[in-house]
Order: sequence, then structure tokens, then C-alpha cells
Amino acid sequence: MNGEVELVPGNSLHTASPEEGRALAVRLARLTIKLTQPDAEARTEARKVYANDPAALLAVAQVVATEFATIAAANDYWR
Amino acid sequence: MNGEVELVPGNSLHTASPEEGRALAVRLARLTIKLTQPDAEARTEARKVYANDPAALLAVAQVVATEFATIAAANDYWR
Amino acid sequence: MNGEVELVPGNSLHTASPEEGRALAVRLARLTIKLTQPDAEARTEARKVYANDPAALLAVAQVVATEFATIAAANDYWR
Amino acid sequence: MNGEVELVPGNSLHTASPEEGRALAVRLARLTIKLTQPDAEARTEARKVYANDPAALLAVAQVVATEFATIAAANDYWR
Amino acid sequence: MNGEVELVPGNSLHTASPEEGRALAVRLARLTIKLTQPDAEARTEARKVYANDPAALLAVAQVVATEFATIAAANDYWR
Amino acid sequence: MNGEVELVPGNSLHTASPEEGRALAVRLARLTIKLTQPDAEARTEARKVYANDPAALLAVAQVVATEFATIAAANDYWR
Repeated sequence: MNGEVELVPGNSLHTASPEEGRALAVRLARLTIKLTQPDAEARTEARKVYANDPAALLAVAQVVATEFATIAAANDYWR
Repeated sequence: MNGEVELVPGNSLHTASPEEGRALAVRLARLTIKLTQPDAEARTEARKVYANDPAALLAVAQVVATEFATIAAANDYWR
Repeated sequence: MNGEVELVPGNSLHTASPEEGRALAVRLARLTIKLTQPDAEARTEARKVYANDPAALLAVAQVVATEFATIAAANDYWR
Repeated sequence: MNGEVELVPGNSLHTASPEEGRALAVRLARLTIKLTQPDAEARTEARKVYANDPAALLAVAQVVATEFATIAAANDYWR
Repeated sequence: MNGEVELVPGNSLHTASPEEGRALAVRLARLTIKLTQPDAEARTEARKVYANDPAALLAVAQVVATEFATIAAANDYWR
Repeated sequence: MNGEVELVPGNSLHTASPEEGRALAVRLARLTIKLTQPDAEARTEARKVYANDPAALLAVAQVVATEFATIAAANDYWR
């Protein structure tokens, strides 16, 4: 763990399915943001911005796509 | 699933063809956006922005390219 | 196909040469943009912006580089 | 080392777990920033901006995702 | 070729050395830009912007890094 | 070499350690910038901007992460 913030839930990249792998990708991204902005209220405010700013929505999608690439490779693409 | 939102349609990265793989890449990107902005009307508004803002169009293209890289590898490039 | 828009011309990532692979990378990017902005006239306007905005030119180059990475791998780098 | 700044803590990409790999990804990113902005006070100011600017938070998340991809591959995904 | 613009000089990703591979990465990026902005004078203007805008310089560096990743893999890293 | 600018110091991606690999990643990025902005004084000015602009610091970090991914793979992750 990095101080108080857990960065990889369950400390594993292994997931049972693509759906779970995708959820993990989302959580990894959120935990980086939690590490950078530890204040929960400030993150709630930021999330409102993401949700209503098209550029931010696409930036979120880019981060999740990047995290998912790693998780998918780690799981050998659930083949 | 992540709460109410399905993140990987069919819970598989396997597709029969590049065309279907590309369509899946587009859907993965859209589902990340749906997770971040669950309100359908707000997404419709955002999509209008994407469609008419050159920078946003290119950001969409970047996300889809990144998602497609993973799906193509998962399908061994449909060789 | 994704509704009316074809996303992968020829439904294959295989090309005879790097030059053709590069051209495919450009077409994949353009087809994502066509899917997002189906109106041909609006795309023509957007392309004028790309062509004259240095930041947009570089964003185009980034997307094409990303698409090409996938196509090059799919063709085993034409070795 | 690059002048006075260490760029890879422990001079290794090997970590015992995904959690430690993720922490290393964060440190690699911070050390690049330290190399570019050696003044500690200026970095503290910059970090306040990251923490309160949604676009910057997402840019941090993108960098960490990219670093983590390399570290995960280096550790064969801790399989 | 894509109309009048050659996209991959020599129609090959093979180079004799990393130095030549890097030069090819730069040329691939420039040829994408040439395809998007065929007017030589407009490109000269755009290049002045790149050269004097820190954000654009970094965007150029990002594109070249991405192109080089593909070329380096194509050459098996010149091992 | 690309005109007067060397693009890959030592014309090799091989380094003895991760620390040296990271330093090479930084140098590759800087040499792309040197190629694009050959004037040393202008680069010094640009570097001041990077150092004091949080968005630019993160863009630097993104470029270095991307270059490092290639160098790490070229060195088989120094395993």
C-alpha cells in the first residue's frame, strides 16, 4: 500500500472474466485519483466535472482503456 | 457488472471478425462513458459536442484505437 | 458493421505492405470519426480545422500512430 | 542516476506484488516530474493543482497507467 | 500510397540501427501531417508553432515516441 | 543522424540497468524536442514553462513513460 491508500484491490490483476477485468480497470484508475486527491468531498466534486465535461469523459475513457490493456494481457485475454 | 452498468457486452473479448472487434471497441468506450455519466440525456448532449468539436472527435478516435489494440491482440489479430 | 458505417475496410487487418498498412491506419481513424459524426459536410468542416490547427494535426498523428501499431503487429511487421 | 535525481528507486522493475508494482509506477512518474522541476516547493504547488483540477487528475491517472503497463510486463504480471 | 502522399518511406519498417529507426519515426509522423495538411506553406507555418509552443513540442515528442515503439518492435529492438 | 541532431545517444537501446534505461528515455524525449526546436535558447525558455506548468509536467511524464516502455522491452526488462 502507498501510505493509507490501497492501489490494487485484492493485490492481484487476475480476474475471472472480462467484465470483472474491466471493473478492476475502473477501480485502478479511481485509486490513482484517490492517491492524488485524498479528500473524498473534493473527489465527488471532480467526478461531477468529469460527468458533465465531454473532454473529461473522453479522458476517463482513455485511462480506463489503458488500464484494461494491462489487465487483459495479465489474464491472457481470458482465452 | 459494475453496479447497474454492463462494461463488456457478452463478457468476452472474442469476436468473429475485425469489423465486429472494432464495433466492440466502440461499445467498450461508450460503456465507460455510461458508467461515468449514467444520465442518458446528458450523454446525448455530450455526444453532440463530440460530433461537432474536432478535438473531441480526435479524442474519441484515440480511445477507440486504444481499445481496439487490446481486442485485436485478444483475437490474435483474426489471423 | 456498426449500423450503416463500415469500420474496417475489407474486414481484415492484413495488408501486403507497410505502405498499405499505414493507409489502413488512416482509414480506421477516419471511420471512427465518420461513426461519431455521420454528416459528411460537418466532417469536411472538421477536416479543415485539423489541417490548420497545429494541435489537431498532432492529435491526428497520434491516432494514426496508435492504429498503425496494431496493424503492424497484426502483419508481424511485414517481416 | 541523472545528475542528482534517482529515476528508478532500487534500480529495478521487479516487485513482490501488484500493489508494490503500482506504488513503483507512481514513484517513477513523480521522479520524472522531480527531474523536470527540481524545486521541492514548486512541486508542492504543482501537486495542489493536480489534486484540484479534474483534467490534471486524469492526466496523472494516464501517466500512472502507462508506467504500470511496463512494470506489470516486467514482472510477468505477477503470475 | 494514399493518393499523392507516400506514407512509409521505402515501404519498410526495417532499419539498420536505432538512429535510423528514430529518424523513420519522425518521418512517419511528418507524413501523416503532410497527408492531413498537403499545403507545404501551411505546414511550414504549423512547424513554427510546434517549435515555439511547449505543449506542441511535447505532443510532437509523444507522437514520435509512439511511432518509435512500433519501429523498434519491428526491428526486434536491433538486438 | 537526422541532419545535425543525433536522435539515439550511442545508437543503441541497450543499457546496463533500469536507471540507465530511464535516463535514456529522458534523453530520447529531449532529442526529439531538440530536432523540432534546434535553438538552444528557445528550448531553455520552453523548459522553464514545463517546469512551472502542471499540465506540461504531466505531459513530460507521459512522454518519458512511453519512451521507457520501449527501452524496457528492448532490454527484456533487465531480467
